[in-house]
This record gives sequence, structure tokens and C-alpha cells, in this order.
Amino acid sequence: MNALQLITKKQAGNELTPDEISYLVRGYVNGDIPDYQMSAFLMAAYYQEMSPEETYQLTKIMLESGERVNTSSIPGIKVDKHSTGGVGDKVSIVLAPLIACVGLYVPMISGRALGHSGGTLDKLESIPGINTNLSVDEAVKQLSKIGAVFMAQTEELVPADKKMYALRDATSTVKSIPLITASILSKKIAEGIDGLVLDVKVGKGAFYSRQQYALKLANSLINVSEKFGLKTSVLFTAMDQPLGKAVGNWLEIKESIDTLRGNGPKDFVDVVLALGSEMLVQTKQEKTYEEALKRLSIKLQSGEAYKKLLEIVKSQGGKTKFIENPGNYPESQRKIVVRSERSGYISTIDALQIGTLAMDVGAGRHKMTDEVDLKAGVMLNKKVGDYVERGEELATIMTDRQIEVTEINTRVWNAIEVTKLKVLPPNPLLGYAVKDGSCRWPPF
Amino acid sequence: MNALQLITKKQAGNELTPDEISYLVRGYVNGDIPDYQMSAFLMAAYYQEMSPEETYQLTKIMLESGERVNTSSIPGIKVDKHSTGGVGDKVSIVLAPLIACVGLYVPMISGRALGHSGGTLDKLESIPGINTNLSVDEAVKQLSKIGAVFMAQTEELVPADKKMYALRDATSTVKSIPLITASILSKKIAEGIDGLVLDVKVGKGAFYSRQQYALKLANSLINVSEKFGLKTSVLFTAMDQPLGKAVGNWLEIKESIDTLRGNGPKDFVDVVLALGSEMLVQTKQEKTYEEALKRLSIKLQSGEAYKKLLEIVKSQGGKTKFIENPGNYPESQRKIVVRSERSGYISTIDALQIGTLAMDVGAGRHKMTDEVDLKAGVMLNKKVGDYVERGEELATIMTDRQIEVTEINTRVWNAIEVTKLKVLPPNPLLGYAVKDGSCRWPPF
Repeated sequence: MNALQLITKKQAGNELTPDEISYLVRGYVNGDIPDYQMSAFLMAAYYQEMSPEETYQLTKIMLESGERVNTSSIPGIKVDKHSTGGVGDKVSIVLAPLIACVGLYVPMISGRALGHSGGTLDKLESIPGINTNLSVDEAVKQLSKIGAVFMAQTEELVPADKKMYALRDATSTVKSIPLITASILSKKIAEGIDGLVLDVKVGKGAFYSRQQYALKLANSLINVSEKFGLKTSVLFTAMDQPLGKAVGNWLEIKESIDTLRGNGPKDFVDVVLALGSEMLVQTKQEKTYEEALKRLSIKLQSGEAYKKLLEIVKSQGGKTKFIENPGNYPESQRKIVVRSERSGYISTIDALQIGTLAMDVGAGRHKMTDEVDLKAGVMLNKKVGDYVERGEELATIMTDRQIEVTEINTRVWNAIEVTKLKVLPPNPLLGYAVKDGSCRWPPF
Repeated sequence: MNALQLITKKQAGNELTPDEISYLVRGYVNGDIPDYQMSAFLMAAYYQEMSPEETYQLTKIMLESGERVNTSSIPGIKVDKHSTGGVGDKVSIVLAPLIACVGLYVPMISGRALGHSGGTLDKLESIPGINTNLSVDEAVKQLSKIGAVFMAQTEELVPADKKMYALRDATSTVKSIPLITASILSKKIAEGIDGLVLDVKVGKGAFYSRQQYALKLANSLINVSEKFGLKTSVLFTAMDQPLGKAVGNWLEIKESIDTLRGNGPKDFVDVVLALGSEMLVQTKQEKTYEEALKRLSIKLQSGEAYKKLLEIVKSQGGKTKFIENPGNYPESQRKIVVRSERSGYISTIDALQIGTLAMDVGAGRHKMTDEVDLKAGVMLNKKVGDYVERGEELATIMTDRQIEVTEINTRVWNAIEVTKLKVLPPNPLLGYAVKDGSCRWPPF
């Protein structure tokens, strides 16, 4: 067996055996197989795909490349959520404390921003002092005590994914359903959880803009999870407009605080509660979705989840004074208000364009080595379905960069469509994946 | 512009601009673009192919990566031949001295054996003392004086191809028509020739076993050559059975000597004369193919071409005593005669199986670092269409390796089919490529 033979086999569309997948992944991780052969293999896999069995084996072998979090010392149920990423997606920051409040344990391992998509780690790091680089031991200790932890992937967990993801990112082979499946699930299974809820975004600002691929991805994720005995649900949520109104790291933390204080934007609250309710039903904390929804709504409104966030941030060394008084946070040098050129209903707020604008004003990264301006971003004043008067504020851009006001105006105007016809606010909850590979509508 | 964008563009099936191709190839040659990005690009190009314009640009940029042989000091016409490779293909060794005899100049740059295919350089190196690692100056000097030179690719000529070919070889991206086209033609154009005849093999032992791909390759080669103003003809020749009867380095040199002394196997002589005659017609040395054929047959029979080979070998330091007395050459430790199990007509001699057997007994390489046993190989006693008696010799295997006689017998029997029905010797000349992408039959 050698790497060239395995590349050729996949290139011709044939299925690799478990031994062959193991040979490739282990060889790559230990350096016997060079980057250039792995990237050729990944590109062949991009075109030829991998069978459910191959995807399962790949996940298993990637998982075995590292340690697993030992959560056996924690007597309760461990759950997590993963999202395929989008613009303004700050769900984790509200969901983790909320779920911890009902007695479940949430070991939340997150990633960083790249391209038009934000990253939960960057958002959290806008809170001064916070440390997300926890060791597995530290994380388990906090999880056991507080019920939730926010952390970066460590060196010990799934090193195969770390190495392969960096290569995929540099060779345009991220967008492959079997590779995404193995990458997500190997990390989640390594967390030692009992239940998983996946938020697969669909729309212009999502990884997959077409429903067809989102369904295929969901099916692949459920398939492989089941083989590991991990309960997994997939919800499809909309990513045509940004989620909520804030896009940018600190701006999103502020919106998360507002939400935890009972003042969140409706679409964002709906997504948080839907994912959370699914977690409670999945782990048999509640019998029905309606009961779970009711329980979580109360925890959100009562301020209990807010207090849990303070507890988590404090435990990880973050300065809670900015959580308690977000107004004291340093502001961007420039605040550019973009006003509507006409009156009417907002029919589109293009998530991809807004996400890219937020990145360009400093909130994101073009490449992994770029530095992020944590306070920069876009605050929307309107959402799809809202009415706007001519001259009324559409959005405000926070930045320290010297970008022309005319460019910013044009980009916001291009991203936001205003029509004379009445537009209803869209439901961000699109459906949930059913085992047979279809999607049930409406789920809620 | 960055490499990732260009990978993504090709991955989606889009055409790259000349600037983009240049950015990739130059960046790769100077080390700015890493192997792993180039191999991902090559695999994407394998699946998405490249347009004729992209293929031309790729050839041009690869060509510009190095020096070109300056043959302007030689007043005559410079021609060359290239073959896509096969089993028992020793055409260059006879063709170069033959063509030099009619006053044309043949700067023959050749490669090494890999897999079941032989390489002209290895064959030549079975002649003790011969040096094929000539500098461009040395080669031009010999070319000018003798009319032909056998040499390896130098560091100065098309370094982009050298680097890219090694990567393609390790990543299963050799078999791509645009990449093959650019690789062959950049090297041939760098030779400073006026005319080129390409021998595209078709059949079980050829790079392309199916006619459809051979036609496509021929069309791509002619298309790009024309844009450089290089006269190019493509002949399709059969590679179902080995060419001639000898497979193995020294064995093929011996068969070439026999041929130059007027005793060559018919199929081999036919292919040599066809390619040579096409050269003479192409460069207007003769008006008709028939006249050219007649002229070359005389040069071959008269021993003039044989003397030219001696001259070339001597000029490059080779010991001509083995050319003059091939019987003095050291022999393999083992000579295993394989006899027919039945009487009948030979209907198949599988070139791929015979080529692989020759490689396994020492004549070839599994990988580029393997050492070659120059005296090892397979001597066929019969060709397709011959009658064989039960117990009569089919082939003799020369080797120093301890391979079981039963294994060798079985492999030869599996490769050679004997039938009761009369079989006619097949014509190895299949046709020649016509500009519109078709093939004319029969051409001769």
C-alpha cells in the first residue's frame, strides 16, 4: 500500500477500505505522507466524494488520532451544539449558559473567524481578560462546577483534523460533505458528549446556499453520529440575512448580553430557543418541544442565564464589568451611519455582503494570520420585514480604518433592498432533518 | 491574485487567464507556491481539464521557465520524434541515426523507464561507457558534427516541467491531456527544432488504451504546436503486443543493432520507417510518403544508418565493441525458456503483462529510485499471427533474480493466447491524426 495508489483509487471513484483510510490519515499525521499527496487525495475526494462507510471510518480514524475528554467524573448529561457558521451567529454565547441553567453540561469548543463568517472564540475574546486556551483538565473542572465552558481546540484533541483542516483551507477542499462530516464529528465525539444538536445554515451567507447540499450534509452527519451511538439532531436555519442585528465581535457580545437580559432580536431568540429546546427533548429533559421552549424562555427572561454567563466569564478570567456595563467598552474611532435612500419595506439584507463588509472594516480575517479589530463591525437598525423611512438609519458601521464613506454607503445600499410591497419578517427556523434524508416543514 | 483563488477557479471549471497561469507556474518554480497547492490545482485540472488556449499558455509559460537550445549555428533542418511510450519501443535508437543519414539533425532528448514502459535513456546506458548527461553546448557540438545526439533533459531546459512532472508522478495527475501536451511540447520546443513527429501509442500496453483519448491527445498536441509555428504530425501506432521481440534494455539495443543491420522484426521496422518517412515529407525532403519510405529503406539496408549509430555511440564515450559484437555482452545468470502448452496461432501477446514481467525480472522500475538490471528482460520468440507448436519456445526470460520458474511460466502463458483459428499479423500503423480531430485510415 502506498499513498499514490490510494490517490489513484479515490481519483477513479473507488471506495477505500478502513485500512487504507487509516494508512492515509495516520501517515499524514505522523509526517510519512507529505502535504502534496494529501492535498491531491483531498481534491480527488472533493470530486469523487466518499461513501457513508468511508466517512464513518475517516471520522473514527481522525478521532483516534488524539485524546478524548474524559467527562466521566461529571454525573450529568453532556450536550453540545455546532453550527456550520454564518453572519451574526452568536448562538453559542447565549445557548451555553442557558442550557447550563437547566442542569445539563455544555463543553463548548469553538473556532475562529475566517472570511465573511465570524468565530465564537474571537467574539468571546472581545471580553477583556478572558482565557479560552484551557487545558482539558481545566475545562473539565469548570464544566463540572459551572456547567459550561468556552474553549479553543487543544493540541491533544483530534490533531488529524487540525492538520487536515489547515491543508483543506489552503487548497479549496473545505467544501466536501464527507470531509466536513468527519471534521465536525471527530471533534464533537472527542468532547465526550451524550447529545448533539447541529445548526445547519442555509442561504446566501451560509456555507451551503442551496437546500440540496444542506440536506445531504445533515444526512451524512446523522448517519455517522448514529454509528458512534451519539444522539444527533439537525436543525436547518436561515442565513439569508444576518442573525440578529449585530455583526462584529464585541457588538455580538453586547447583543448576546441584551438577549440574556430579555431584549434579544426576535430571529436570534427564536434560533437559540429552537436549538436549546431540541437539546432538552433529545436528552429527555422534557417530553415535548413546547414544554422545553416554555422552560427555556423562562430561564432567559428571569435573568438566570445572564447570571450563568457572568459566572462562566469570571471563571475564565474575563472582566465582568464590561458585561454588566457594556456602555463602558471602548468605541471605534469612526461611526458611520448609513441612511435609506427611499421609503419602503426591507426585503433583503444580504448576509454575505454584510459579513464581507464587517470583515473589511476590521471585524474579520482574510487569512488566519490577520489581526481582528474586536470592536469593529456593522450594527443593523432594521431587519427584513421592517419598514424604513427615506433618510432613516439602515445601519451603523464601527471602524478604525480609513475607508471612504461613499464606499461604505454604496456597499450597505447594495446589500439592503427596499421595496414598496409589504414584506413579512421571515421565519429563521426552516426545518429539521429526518433520518430518511428529507426535511420536515415546518417543525415548530 | 493568490494560489487558493486560482485553485478554486479551476475547481469550479472556469478558464484561467494567461496572467493567472503564469502566476501559478512561476510561483511554483520559484518556491512561492507550495507543492500542496500545486498538487491540488493539478488534481482540479485533471477533473476539469483546460481549454486549448489555457493549454497553449501553460506550454508557453513552462517553456519560458528555462533556456532554449540555440541551434542557429547548425544550418540544416532540425527534427525530432516523441513517443507516448510503450513496451519494446526502441524506435529512437534506430530512427535518430537513420534520419541523420539523410542530412537532417536529430537532437534526441529522452527519459527513463517507469512502470511497465521502458525508457530510451536506460536502454542507451546498457552500452558500457556511454554518457547521456551532456551539456547543451556539448550536445549542439555533436549534433552539428554527426547529425544526432542522445541526451537526458538538462537543468536549464524547462525546469518547470521537471518540477511539475515529479509532483504529478507522485500525485496521480500525469494522465491529463492538457498537462501531457504542455509537458511534451515545452520540452520539444526548447530543443530548437523545425519539425516534430509524435508517435501516439494506442492499446493495452499504451498510456491511453482507448482510441478516443489518443485522438483527443493528438488534437491537443497539434493545436498547441501550431500556435508555436512548429510543424507537427501525429501517427497512431499499435501497442497491444510489444513492439519487436525484445523487451529489456540491452536486449532492445541488440534488436536495434539487428535492425540497423537489416534484420529487424517487421512491425518494428514498419514503425521506424513510417515515423521517419513522415519526417522527410514534413520537412519537404521528399514529395511523397512512398519516395521517403524507399529512401529510408535503402539507408537501413545499406548499413549506412548502422555506421551512424557507431559514430554517435563513440562520440558519447560508448564502447562500440559491444555494438559490433553483441555476443560478447555479459549475460543474465538465469535464462528461463517458456514453451507453449498447445499448438496454434498466437492471437494476443499482452504488452502490459509482458512489460510488467520485464520490470519484475529487473528491466524496469517500480519507483524512480529503483536500480535497473540492464541485461534483464523478455525475448519473445513469436509475434501475433505466428504459428507455434506445442512444446516450442514462446519466450525466454533473462534475469538474475530468484523468481520461481512456475511463476514465470504462468505469467507468460497468461500474457500469450494461442488459438486454433488462423490469425493474421496485425498492422502496427493505425493511422495519422488530421487537424479536425479525426484520424485517417489507413494512412500508408
